[in-house]
Formats: sequence, structure tokens, C-alpha cells
Amino acid sequence: MAQEVRVKNIGLRGVAVADTKISYIDGERGILIYRGYRIEELAEKTTFPEVAYLLLKGRLPGRAQLEEFSEMLVNSREIPPYVLESFRTLPREGDPMDVLQGVVPLLALSDPELQDESREANERKALRLIARLPAVIAAWNRIRQGEDPLPPDDSLTHAGNFLWQLTGKKPSEDMARDLDVCLILHADHTFNASTFACREVVSTQAHMYAGVSAGVGALSGALHGGANARVMQMLEQVEKEIHSLDEVEDWVRRRIDAHEKIMGMGHAVYKTDDPRSKILRVMSKRLGEKTGYEKWYQLLTRIEKVATEEFEKKGKTGIKCNVDFYSGSVYAMMGIPRDIMTPVFAISRISGWCAHILEEKFGEAQGKPALYRPQAEYVGDYCGEIGCVFQPLEERET
Amino acid sequence: MAQEVRVKNIGLRGVAVADTKISYIDGERGILIYRGYRIEELAEKTTFPEVAYLLLKGRLPGRAQLEEFSEMLVNSREIPPYVLESFRTLPREGDPMDVLQGVVPLLALSDPELQDESREANERKALRLIARLPAVIAAWNRIRQGEDPLPPDDSLTHAGNFLWQLTGKKPSEDMARDLDVCLILHADHTFNASTFACREVVSTQAHMYAGVSAGVGALSGALHGGANARVMQMLEQVEKEIHSLDEVEDWVRRRIDAHEKIMGMGHAVYKTDDPRSKILRVMSKRLGEKTGYEKWYQLLTRIEKVATEEFEKKGKTGIKCNVDFYSGSVYAMMGIPRDIMTPVFAISRISGWCAHILEEKFGEAQGKPALYRPQAEYVGDYCGEIGCVFQPLEERET
Repeated sequence: MAQEVRVKNIGLRGVAVADTKISYIDGERGILIYRGYRIEELAEKTTFPEVAYLLLKGRLPGRAQLEEFSEMLVNSREIPPYVLESFRTLPREGDPMDVLQGVVPLLALSDPELQDESREANERKALRLIARLPAVIAAWNRIRQGEDPLPPDDSLTHAGNFLWQLTGKKPSEDMARDLDVCLILHADHTFNASTFACREVVSTQAHMYAGVSAGVGALSGALHGGANARVMQMLEQVEKEIHSLDEVEDWVRRRIDAHEKIMGMGHAVYKTDDPRSKILRVMSKRLGEKTGYEKWYQLLTRIEKVATEEFEKKGKTGIKCNVDFYSGSVYAMMGIPRDIMTPVFAISRISGWCAHILEEKFGEAQGKPALYRPQAEYVGDYCGEIGCVFQPLEERET
Repeated sequence: MAQEVRVKNIGLRGVAVADTKISYIDGERGILIYRGYRIEELAEKTTFPEVAYLLLKGRLPGRAQLEEFSEMLVNSREIPPYVLESFRTLPREGDPMDVLQGVVPLLALSDPELQDESREANERKALRLIARLPAVIAAWNRIRQGEDPLPPDDSLTHAGNFLWQLTGKKPSEDMARDLDVCLILHADHTFNASTFACREVVSTQAHMYAGVSAGVGALSGALHGGANARVMQMLEQVEKEIHSLDEVEDWVRRRIDAHEKIMGMGHAVYKTDDPRSKILRVMSKRLGEKTGYEKWYQLLTRIEKVATEEFEKKGKTGIKCNVDFYSGSVYAMMGIPRDIMTPVFAISRISGWCAHILEEKFGEAQGKPALYRPQAEYVGDYCGEIGCVFQPLEERET
């Protein structure tokens, strides 16, 4: 039994709860690494399926391996018919994140290898989840509009096919590649709240679907994956409230003075520029020029500049823009509805979640798995040795 | 920023991660307390709705309050029709825990107060969840057998009505009360893996349904809620392998010598008798005599006695039977199918989960909520300042 350690009331900030070999963040220097490789290099030179392979298996694939893996992704993406049938029974206004969290455990019902807890079988479950999450989101988006899901287009990439099945428009190669890069950027981020939820749940020996569903639940929170949509909400608010770009400065100052949050700025781990936001900033600019929506990029860069200066004036250094600051605008320019932005985060992060679930289940970083079973300090009523004096129902005051 | 603390590789055992006012365990002395009251006293003198009220609101209800609360439970238990419709689309062999984890986020779709994050609205969400989980389990159990769900019987208690809707048999008053006591015993247990999952998920500001669904996922694991069904599995195995009770001793010794687990024995927190198992042991005996299934009680007490002695001989003191050791036999004698035993755990623990979610969301024990965002120590590949050297796809060995 370890000696009791008190780390309470800080949400485990700065507390190393496990070892991992999957990813690494140097928050002071703005470095993010997956399995040894810098995120900038992966975003430039790889594809999302390649990164998913890297995360799951711990090494980059050779050509034949990547081809096999990509083919398995394509062959696994068909959703079981009962999922589509059950979608047709649901209230159409259902939030896609709720639907996604609900559907993941239901996918377990038809996994032919559910009882097989070998690493190989779990890798195949991971692959099926990576393949199916985009199809599930796209199908829900169609069904809630009273339309039938679209058949996949095998000539498109993983990211491109998602855009097609979601929007009903075939994306350009450039746009498909942009989304592919977004998926690479969001694929893993060590022990964030959703990944920790996945690991915590499977530490009880629950299956991968149970863990992933919990991850989706955590991601749905406004302080986690919900942030990109909130940035878009903020942008729409700014647009309404100002008449020219010159008014951005005042708008930001008023907001900061009123102690309101600037959405998409600040991060639990990064104290300098988030390396992912640098890539997304460039992408937002380029997509803006191409699609005619430069206004969002212009607004965002102004807000970023003024807010950074204001925070520094107030001595709050290190509040820089995070991955969510530019991603919402990028997704909007791709035709992704606002309430599908967090699900897009999920169809990327699913690769990291599954890699962490494998690491947790097989004790791959620290030799053996450990059920998470923390303690809490009791600060409630306690009336001596025998507990509080119990009053029978009749004698209690109402 | 707190200084970095290293508690890794131990699953947070012995690490106090937060304050709580909800429940307290003294593992050395075998004491369990909900909101100040000893579990023994609550099990003897209260009902499950009373305990749910206590957990959610922090005080025992007066008569009028309890009546109002119970009435709200009765009025809230109807499941939205789309849930039943979607149940009819699912593969019938689906594990009830997967179905339950999946259905909880779908219940959010029709919660009229989903967006209202006040404490009052969240309390009402909790009440709806406590009311509906039993109805959901009972409905799935009927639908998977090709039968229609049964209408509730308002003359029965919360526990009694669940047995009726589940099995189609009206339980005796005694049996309904026995299940009621089981629900009291399982209602809360501080920061166990499922409760921690609930709290962790809602710490992102995700809604209550997202948190509860994660809790169900954690509970489904064999190291957590899945244990009671595993005890039953073990009992069935013993029955097959021995011909008389006298052979139990050898059976247990062989199992321990082969380093196989004795299911339902040992606990992360209790180092002495689990106060809940003492109550369940008596219940198992009484129900056995009444239903003619004394054999299970006889087997269990033999196994407990021999295993405790064997563990002590080996210097492993403190491996005592836990809450799961006798509960499976109790549920079996009530006509509850083996794969519904963990869901029964859930229909009790839902009250504790919701109380913890309220405490987490409103910072009720420690002044303010804190997003759980732990760290991990990176022990994977890292090749200096710039990361590992990236090999283009063409140059990689397969």
C-alpha cells in the first residue's frame, strides 16, 4: 500500500498518474510528439491513417503495411444496419455528441470479437472504431435531416470520404487533405480529460467500446472538445456586435475587463504557442482566401493579437491560442455544421483513445495494468465513532 | 501551477484526489458512512428512495419531503417511446450493460431541461435517471425475449416494481424489501472507479447523462461491478466440480495454490469485513431457507471460511469477502438473470453517481470545480530536441 498522498482540489494538474509511450508535450517550449515524431513533421509528411497506425502500433508503417491498414479501414466502415434503424427512431434535434456517445456501446453488440481480449483482437476493434465513427456521424447528420445516408466513395481518402458522406459534396483534393491534416493534429494529446476517461474505464477490464464511449462523453464538455464550436459562437457574436475590424480591439478589451473568457485561448498544458494552432492558423488563412470567408481569419487574428497583448499587460503571460481557436473556422469553411465540429474532433481522437486503451489494457508503458481507484478526503458530517444519530422518519423536521 | 507530483503506476491507490461530503469508508475498521450515517442503520431503518434523497440533498427527508420525492420517482419512470423503439432494432444477444451505457446518453435527447445547468434542474435530471434506469433494464430484458415491456405497478415499492417489471412476477413484500436493502447497500462508495469516471467526465462541463453513461461503462468491468456475476459463475463451476460440501476445502486450496482468484474476495479499500457483506450474508441465508436454494449459502460460507484461513496461512491477511460475494446468490434467488446482476448494481449506484456529479459540478465539497487533467510521464521514443528522424514512406522497412 502506497503511503497516502494528497493532491486534492487541483483536478490532478501536474500530477503524473501513469507512464505512457504514446505522446509527449513540452508545454514550455510548445512541442508535441507522437511516438517520438514531431507533430509538424507528421502533419506535413504523413496521412491520418498512417498516424493512426503509428499511434496504435508504435511505429510508422511501411508501404505494404499502410496499404493493408488503409484497405481494412475502407472495408470496416459499414455501420451495422440496426444502428441506422435505431437512428431513425431518435428525436432529430438530438445533439450529435449524445448520439455518438450512445451509439459506441451499441456498436459492441455486433463486434464478432467482443469477448476476445487479445491485443490483436483489440487492435482490430480499434480499427473498426476508427473506420466507423466518421460513418456514424455522417449518417446521423443525414438521417436527422430526413435523408438517407450516402454510400461511401472508395476513391476518396478517409478524410475526403467523411466530407462527402457528411455534406453530400465531393471535396476537392486540397480540402480533403486539409481535413486529413486536422485529423492528424487532433489525434492524440497524452492524458487529456477524454483520454484519461477512456483509460480509467478500461482499467476495470471493461471492453474498448465502454472506454471510447466515456471518452466521447468527456469530449462533449465545453472545457474540452466543445471549445471549437464555442469559438465559432464567439465569432458570430463579434460579427453581430461590431461594424468594422477596427472595433475588434475595443470588443476584446471590454470582454476581458468583464472577466469573460476569450474562447480558444489558454491551455492546461501549453504555456506558449500550441504547435497545432500555428498550422491551423495558416490553414484558416488559405481556406479563407479560397472560399471567400477571409473575414473569420481576419477576425481571429485580430482577436488573438489584442487578447495576447491585453493578457500580457495584466501579467497573465502564457495565455496563447490553443488548437480550438482556428479549427472551428476551418471546419466551417469545409461546410461542417457547428454541432458536428466536436464530433470531428472525436473521429480524429478515436485513434489516440484506442492507442491509450491498448496501452492501459496491456500495461505496455509500465509493465502492468492498474485499476484506477483513487481516494477522497471526507469533509462531510461525521459524528464520532458510530456515525450521526439517526432520527426516525416520524421525528424529522421537514 | 502545483509542483509536479509523481504518484504513477499505482492506479491512484491511496491518493486523495478531491474532497467529498457524500460518503466515507474506514477500511481498517470496516465502516461505511453515507452523509454521516452508518450503512447498518440506513439498511435497517430506511428505504432506497430515502437514501437517494439523502445522497442527493445531503440530509434525510421528512415525511412530506419523502412522499413528494417518491411520487416524483413514480411519475418519472416512463421511458421515452423512441428508446423502446430503438431497443426493438438491437441484436437480442446484446449485453445489458452495453445497452444501458448506450441508452443513457440517448435519454438526454428528450430531457426537457438538458440545457439548464442549475442545481435544481440537475437534481431533477438525477431523479429521472434514478426512476428510469430500472425501467430501462426491465424493458430490455423483456424485449430481448421477444416480449413487450410490462406496465409499472404503482402499488409496489421502487425495488418491488423493478422485480415485477423485470420478471413478470409480483414479489412478496419481504423479497421487495430485501432488494430495497440491496439497493441501499450499493448506493455509494466514495471514489470507486465508476464514480470517479462520472466525476471526471462532468468536470469538463459535460452534462449528467454523459457522466452517468461513463459510470455504467466503468461498472461493466470485471474488476468492478462485473464481480457479482463472476461469483455466480464460480459457484456454478464449484457445483459441477465437486460432489459434496466436504470437497469445498480441497477445491478452494487447489484454486489458491494455482494462483486463481476467489471471486468476491479482497477489496481495494477494506482490510477487514466489508460491512455490506455482513448484511448480505444474513440475507443470503434467509432467502436460501425460504426459496430452497440453501446450497448457495452453504457453498459460499464454506468457500469464505476456507479461503480466509488459507490466505491467512500465506500471510495475506485482510482478504475478506466483499459486497459481491453474497449479492449474486441473493439476486439469483430473486429470479434475476446473471447478466442483469451488474445492471442491478447500476440501478442502485445511480443515486451515488448523481450525488457525486452534483458535488463535482457545483464544487460543493471543495469550493470550486476542477477539470481533471492529469499528466503522464513519457517513457517512449524521444530523440533529442527535434524528435526522431522521420523516414519517408518509401524508405521505411516493412
